[in-house]
Amino acid sequence: MGKIRSDIAWSTADRIVVRGKSFPEEILGKMNLGDFAWLQLTGNVPTPQQSNVFNAIIVALVEHGLTPSAIVARMTYSCAPESLQAAVAAGLCGLGTNVVGSMEGAARYLSEALPKDAPADTDLEALAKQIVARFRQDRIPVPGLGHVIHKPIDPRTPRLFEIAKENGYSGRYIRLLQLVHVEAQRASGKNMPINATGVIGAISCELGFAWKITRGFGVMARAIGLVGHILEESQNPIAREVWSRTEEEATSHVRPEASKS
Amino acid sequence: MGKIRSDIAWSTADRIVVRGKSFPEEILGKMNLGDFAWLQLTGNVPTPQQSNVFNAIIVALVEHGLTPSAIVARMTYSCAPESLQAAVAAGLCGLGTNVVGSMEGAARYLSEALPKDAPADTDLEALAKQIVARFRQDRIPVPGLGHVIHKPIDPRTPRLFEIAKENGYSGRYIRLLQLVHVEAQRASGKNMPINATGVIGAISCELGFAWKITRGFGVMARAIGLVGHILEESQNPIAREVWSRTEEEATSHVRPEASKS
Amino acid sequence: MGKIRSDIAWSTADRIVVRGKSFPEEILGKMNLGDFAWLQLTGNVPTPQQSNVFNAIIVALVEHGLTPSAIVARMTYSCAPESLQAAVAAGLCGLGTNVVGSMEGAARYLSEALPKDAPADTDLEALAKQIVARFRQDRIPVPGLGHVIHKPIDPRTPRLFEIAKENGYSGRYIRLLQLVHVEAQRASGKNMPINATGVIGAISCELGFAWKITRGFGVMARAIGLVGHILEESQNPIAREVWSRTEEEATSHVRPEASKS
Amino acid sequence: MGKIRSDIAWSTADRIVVRGKSFPEEILGKMNLGDFAWLQLTGNVPTPQQSNVFNAIIVALVEHGLTPSAIVARMTYSCAPESLQAAVAAGLCGLGTNVVGSMEGAARYLSEALPKDAPADTDLEALAKQIVARFRQDRIPVPGLGHVIHKPIDPRTPRLFEIAKENGYSGRYIRLLQLVHVEAQRASGKNMPINATGVIGAISCELGFAWKITRGFGVMARAIGLVGHILEESQNPIAREVWSRTEEEATSHVRPEASKS
Repeated sequence: MGKIRSDIAWSTADRIVVRGKSFPEEILGKMNLGDFAWLQLTGNVPTPQQSNVFNAIIVALVEHGLTPSAIVARMTYSCAPESLQAAVAAGLCGLGTNVVGSMEGAARYLSEALPKDAPADTDLEALAKQIVARFRQDRIPVPGLGHVIHKPIDPRTPRLFEIAKENGYSGRYIRLLQLVHVEAQRASGKNMPINATGVIGAISCELGFAWKITRGFGVMARAIGLVGHILEESQNPIAREVWSRTEEEATSHVRPEASKS
Repeated sequence: MGKIRSDIAWSTADRIVVRGKSFPEEILGKMNLGDFAWLQLTGNVPTPQQSNVFNAIIVALVEHGLTPSAIVARMTYSCAPESLQAAVAAGLCGLGTNVVGSMEGAARYLSEALPKDAPADTDLEALAKQIVARFRQDRIPVPGLGHVIHKPIDPRTPRLFEIAKENGYSGRYIRLLQLVHVEAQRASGKNMPINATGVIGAISCELGFAWKITRGFGVMARAIGLVGHILEESQNPIAREVWSRTEEEATSHVRPEASKS
Repeated sequence: MGKIRSDIAWSTADRIVVRGKSFPEEILGKMNLGDFAWLQLTGNVPTPQQSNVFNAIIVALVEHGLTPSAIVARMTYSCAPESLQAAVAAGLCGLGTNVVGSMEGAARYLSEALPKDAPADTDLEALAKQIVARFRQDRIPVPGLGHVIHKPIDPRTPRLFEIAKENGYSGRYIRLLQLVHVEAQRASGKNMPINATGVIGAISCELGFAWKITRGFGVMARAIGLVGHILEESQNPIAREVWSRTEEEATSHVRPEASKS
Repeated sequence: MGKIRSDIAWSTADRIVVRGKSFPEEILGKMNLGDFAWLQLTGNVPTPQQSNVFNAIIVALVEHGLTPSAIVARMTYSCAPESLQAAVAAGLCGLGTNVVGSMEGAARYLSEALPKDAPADTDLEALAKQIVARFRQDRIPVPGLGHVIHKPIDPRTPRLFEIAKENGYSGRYIRLLQLVHVEAQRASGKNMPINATGVIGAISCELGFAWKITRGFGVMARAIGLVGHILEESQNPIAREVWSRTEEEATSHVRPEASKS
């Protein structure tokens, strides 16, 4: 038989211990939500600098407007208000390749090109050229670059770079992302911004996270955002209107004239 | 046609505004995750006291050990590692009546018994007697009381009461919960603790939240906890072992001898 | 320690047995999907009559147009096409009280009013009056009656009654539903049809299913319907258009003039 | 503005039309569930041969024992019994790459190697060699081959081949899969069976389905299977036992002696 072991938390009748700390005495009322998320994920209390940077990147992922995820959560809530948790779950299901994939993709190529123990004199420009060349060869847009709405720059990007820098986390991964940006613009002849998820992917590497878990940052942040949308839906609903308009228009080409509104 | 309107966020090419604030300038790097969650939900920046209390109650809901939710998220991730978001979603689906229902239930009877505009001289003891009597009549355990493991007290409870008090949020809802506790013990003749979700339900009322959204606090907090469990599963897996043991034992009464291990 | 036991299926290197039958030899190629669903749920092969009735009620739940569930599944698929299973899951999350609840609600009051061993001379008219009176007292619409679109009758209803009758499953539960219908119209003074989910609830009782599992009929049927919608979305997408229209309209009251389209 | 159009179904006050057919008159009571699933997906009524083959492959995917999906659905139901739909949804979330991916993977390489309009004299043996060589080069196991339990053959495989043949659907895709099997065994020097999902992938190609939708076959079938597991869980629960054993064992290395059972 294999082993079943978890090192996150344990409890007895009078104790609750999370990541080795007494939950009531050392955590509750002493750590904010972002800092506790860091502890939950890494097993360590963040430094003030880590706290600043980590809170910023998670905050940046909470609310992205009336996205498909938000519409999905609202529609699900309107049909099953007794299962609020299922409405959030439904909204999260869409946080895949076409949404948070950009963050994951950026973190992946940055960390794969530049392992933590890469020599100090690694030629980042050469790496950037290789990264861009490979994406161009595969005819895949470079993750972390470009934005449908935010042009010519994504307004979150300079602020995120600044936060990373102020806290000592503007290292080689951010530099490499910037070089990838320059090279991608040069090779394509097009202007495109570094988008927020690209920066967050790079910052995740700076903070030492594996690229595979970065999608989880988007998921935990968006869960908060979706609860906000569900609360608004309960007060000022839009789901039923979206439904009825969509259904009516979608079938107007086949329904008999008399039943059209 | 009905209206479709949301007041949470909007964006243009160069601006992102959430709850009326410039996201890059006023929020990013200036608010921690818990405070931004408050802004997302209420539309207002929390006071320092609100921040302390709100961060504490959400933090209290992040990690509850290797619960069914955590096992579900881990099992789902082991089958579909490319869909991390779906693993979190699966884990959240179980946050229903038997789990976060206690928090919701407590917030509900407290807020329904004591509307925000209830007169200052409302007899809380009488309300407590009515609440307990009704649950006893319906043969339903009073939400917010009792705990399978934590006896005779839930170690989070006194700490949460303390945090509420230190920040000026120990008002009539907390008092009413305590009176319900006393009355329930008297009526049943049994000792049972006020559990953490009960206190959180009461504090949610103190903070002005509608009972219907309190389940969402559990959902957004647990999303963070589940990402932690998925990260550990990716490093030190248990899902396949739980699966194989369960399947083997469950069918050992019918499988032919030779195939049993 | 408690027991872990399941009696649905088991397998060894060369055998697969479901509900006591050799899957390759006795099931595969010999039972259609609806009949196997019956076997999976009940442990028995359906009679031809049970097969006719059960296939009909599940078929009736597969496709209900461009419902919120279908829109949710399509939107989720458009964001995470690599996780088709999560798109179906998201769509199913909304099959709650406001959607399949009608079927469940009807099955519940019919089976609670009329236990399987109720005497042959039970006064169904009296039961119908009690059922309607209780819902009217609680100001809850009687489940299984009324339809937003299908008036004055739901076109599936007479056909479902007919199928039940032809196969010997038009018994006391259907009779009681019809009496509830008459009484509800009399008491309210309004015309309202028996809707399809109401009939399906009654037929589920005739077939001997517990009311708690009837929601599952809607869930398994709709999973099929949603795969159909996802396939159409992959060929003729609508999700992005619904998204962009919704987001634009929802925020047009706050976005600066210049950015409006 | 883009178009919003769906061609699956429409309804008016007195009509319901699915895939161009009157639902009450032409479908209800006249088509079994598997046949209606075919109509929902393809827009056509299946021939008797298509019905036999399609029902068989979907039936083959309904019940695979106490899989992670089944355990997940049961655990979720035990926590949120009021949200049966969310329990099924949670169970479906895990039907990803490591589970139904085999079917999808097989359908993909078969259909990409052999387009529908490939010349009659296409050298299938050469294609098989190319397919196997590519997977070996990428160090990826060939989808559709091998099984953890069913050795030396998967007992469903010969039966599925037989059903396809009897109904005139044993064509070039099945032949190519068999050649891939031979080549993979030759190249690796290992015996491995063609598994059931591999055959289903090949049959899906024979039936004309795009590989991208084959995962949906697993999803819609398993939804039925999971409702069966939830029904058994409601009668003979195992979820809480799996939970308590798992939690206790996982934390026994850190909990103080006194609290261990």
